[in-house]
Amino acid sequence: MKYVFKNAMVLTMNNNTEVLKSCDVLIENDIISGIGNLNNEQIQGARIIDASGKLLMPGLINGHCHVPMTLLRNYADDMSLQTWLFEHIFPTEEKLIGDDIYYGSLLGIMELIASGTTCFIDMYDHMNDLAKAVEESGIRAQLSRGMINASDGPDFSDDARLNETIDFYKKWNGAANGRITGAFAPHAIYTCSPAYIKAISEAAKKYEAPIHVHLDETLVEHEDCLKKYGKTPTQHLYDLGIFEHKTVAAHCVWITEEDIKIMVDNNVTMTHNPSSNLKLASGIAPVPNALRRGVNVILGTDGASSNNNLNMFEEINLAALIHKGVNQNPLLINAAEALRMATVNGAAALGMDNLGVIKEGAKADVILIDMDKPHLMPVHNVISALAYSVQGADVCLTMVDGAILYENGEFKTIDKEKVSYGIKKSYERLF
Amino acid sequence: MKYVFKNAMVLTMNNNTEVLKSCDVLIENDIISGIGNLNNEQIQGARIIDASGKLLMPGLINGHCHVPMTLLRNYADDMSLQTWLFEHIFPTEEKLIGDDIYYGSLLGIMELIASGTTCFIDMYDHMNDLAKAVEESGIRAQLSRGMINASDGPDFSDDARLNETIDFYKKWNGAANGRITGAFAPHAIYTCSPAYIKAISEAAKKYEAPIHVHLDETLVEHEDCLKKYGKTPTQHLYDLGIFEHKTVAAHCVWITEEDIKIMVDNNVTMTHNPSSNLKLASGIAPVPNALRRGVNVILGTDGASSNNNLNMFEEINLAALIHKGVNQNPLLINAAEALRMATVNGAAALGMDNLGVIKEGAKADVILIDMDKPHLMPVHNVISALAYSVQGADVCLTMVDGAILYENGEFKTIDKEKVSYGIKKSYERLF
Repeated sequence: MKYVFKNAMVLTMNNNTEVLKSCDVLIENDIISGIGNLNNEQIQGARIIDASGKLLMPGLINGHCHVPMTLLRNYADDMSLQTWLFEHIFPTEEKLIGDDIYYGSLLGIMELIASGTTCFIDMYDHMNDLAKAVEESGIRAQLSRGMINASDGPDFSDDARLNETIDFYKKWNGAANGRITGAFAPHAIYTCSPAYIKAISEAAKKYEAPIHVHLDETLVEHEDCLKKYGKTPTQHLYDLGIFEHKTVAAHCVWITEEDIKIMVDNNVTMTHNPSSNLKLASGIAPVPNALRRGVNVILGTDGASSNNNLNMFEEINLAALIHKGVNQNPLLINAAEALRMATVNGAAALGMDNLGVIKEGAKADVILIDMDKPHLMPVHNVISALAYSVQGADVCLTMVDGAILYENGEFKTIDKEKVSYGIKKSYERLF
Repeated sequence: MKYVFKNAMVLTMNNNTEVLKSCDVLIENDIISGIGNLNNEQIQGARIIDASGKLLMPGLINGHCHVPMTLLRNYADDMSLQTWLFEHIFPTEEKLIGDDIYYGSLLGIMELIASGTTCFIDMYDHMNDLAKAVEESGIRAQLSRGMINASDGPDFSDDARLNETIDFYKKWNGAANGRITGAFAPHAIYTCSPAYIKAISEAAKKYEAPIHVHLDETLVEHEDCLKKYGKTPTQHLYDLGIFEHKTVAAHCVWITEEDIKIMVDNNVTMTHNPSSNLKLASGIAPVPNALRRGVNVILGTDGASSNNNLNMFEEINLAALIHKGVNQNPLLINAAEALRMATVNGAAALGMDNLGVIKEGAKADVILIDMDKPHLMPVHNVISALAYSVQGADVCLTMVDGAILYENGEFKTIDKEKVSYGIKKSYERLF
């Protein structure tokens, strides 16, 4: 298909976070193939989309999610992490079957695309069902089976979860025109033994797979690791060889100065999940310092049960607000930095320089924001508006890989009624 | 007019934060006159509004705002408070004329009602123009002229701002079927001399007017006050007699244990403005402690230039999140507490026990939330959903004093085109 967005204001997210006042953007197949004044030949046969009064920008990249957890949204809140996890979340998760994952994922993907996210990095269970939802819906995702020790070493050749991971990676990495990629996901240092993490690292090397891992989320994890291994969780993972692979480490709330150096030296991406870290009372990650030192910091929602939504614009807003307040410094994490974390930095974490940016040759993962809303008027500075004023619901069009997935409240690839019915059935069985 | 909301889920905000699963709510004139199964006689002649799949709850009360500052939205961000205030905000505010205030207020009111706010407490300048916008739009508000010393004592009988305050109060307090009330507003301890604050207090006594004041917003204010007067800002205002009046004190970021005792003993309401306090890097107000000690804490957005929106659902969300994270305690400020701050506590601050709650005899200030959205599914717990998942844009109907002001994206009392034009003209003149 061929599309022209006509008279759009464009937030490029290039190195200068440049905003183009009014221009046309041409999409051919899965690629942005023209920006500026297009001639008649270029636009021939295209669907023309009037984008005047609207802002076109790269789709958001959700850097840490467990998308099927929409099923557990608003189910267990305002309680201690232990009660939440061991008395509510884990027992319910044990009951999940493939259909729950499929419909829960589709529900989450609906929420993601309706609030401007075009790509997400996810770790969960029943990954074939999750991947099916990604494939059908048209969104982009890096997917991994979260692994916790199912067996114990020294030989993990029969480990069910590691073998699932390998099978999943072989089947899905690069699928759906490259929209789906895979990763290997040791869940966390407190759920995986050192031998298991080593085995995962070796397997990842064989398949040249990237890594997705939870890291240093709580003070308990940090202190237990110091006690048990005499080093921080980051140093522990480093010593086990995990950072030899392209790694996305979620949370990093309690990382030290030395840990930050390890992350910079090894090109480890850190996912900041402000809502989740606040809600679960994990603490405030040292994001300003990590950014200043050169860590690639991206943003994520975490799962809907610890947030309780998958709205990346809320994470952008929080990232731009909380570090100013907590550090009493209004210059920390400006609007453009918060937006970079949710776009270009996310693309860098995936090793893609043709994503998270509006430029010729980039992937056509774009969103349109309707600026004709009282809360976005007057338009002084669109970068500030996107960080501080916008709501997810201001997104009026979401395109991934050159296909429109969502437009003016309508889902083009997902049957909302079917998902509602599927969710209702899962809900009745689970609760 | 007479309305029946049919088959609504109802969040009452009564003492038990009770939720009614499916019931009918009757509105007659400006009052909620029936809840439950209504008979044919009761509903005769009413417009029936199908509220199945929707949640009906009290409209939100914005406890501290400067509504015309929408004009300065996204105009000056990510800079120090001094640069922001003295180089950008104050110089622009000096140029404001009545028309700016009128259209800026209407724009702000559109944003408020479109995101579920039915009442706001405001302090600004050109108050007749602001009051005209409130009167015409149909929203509820407590309004006050912000006073800073225009003259110096000992006699303030010719003080222009104090006289404006008195004239405004006489003209508008109780106007528009009581939708508009007045207050006296000494701006802050750092902009008003002690003699001036005393004169304001005496005038307030004469008119039995409540007080709206900024209090202890920044560490600089707190420390300067200690240096200058040998006491905290709260103790200073107490000694000047301000708390003999019903007082709403905005911010209270740096209040001490002793200050909290003074607030409790004198029934002073504290407005928590989390977005503004974070964005301007003022700090984190001790809300959990104030609530535990018995202070009536309410929520506010502050002006749109330090937020940068007037969306009270974002403040509810932030209030429920940040204190957990900062204090590493997930039990602080649960969802119901955050909602109480934005509803019943706000009503208490105004001295109204028939507002902020759904009960027979209460004022018909209600909103409807459309729960048929991916990010609100499945419906486990609506109280959690409202604090953690909802967006302002999920509000599909807003009623104040029994009149519908907003329904399905349409403003019933405000001409959006006229406001856009007025804002455009102001913008061109000011910037």
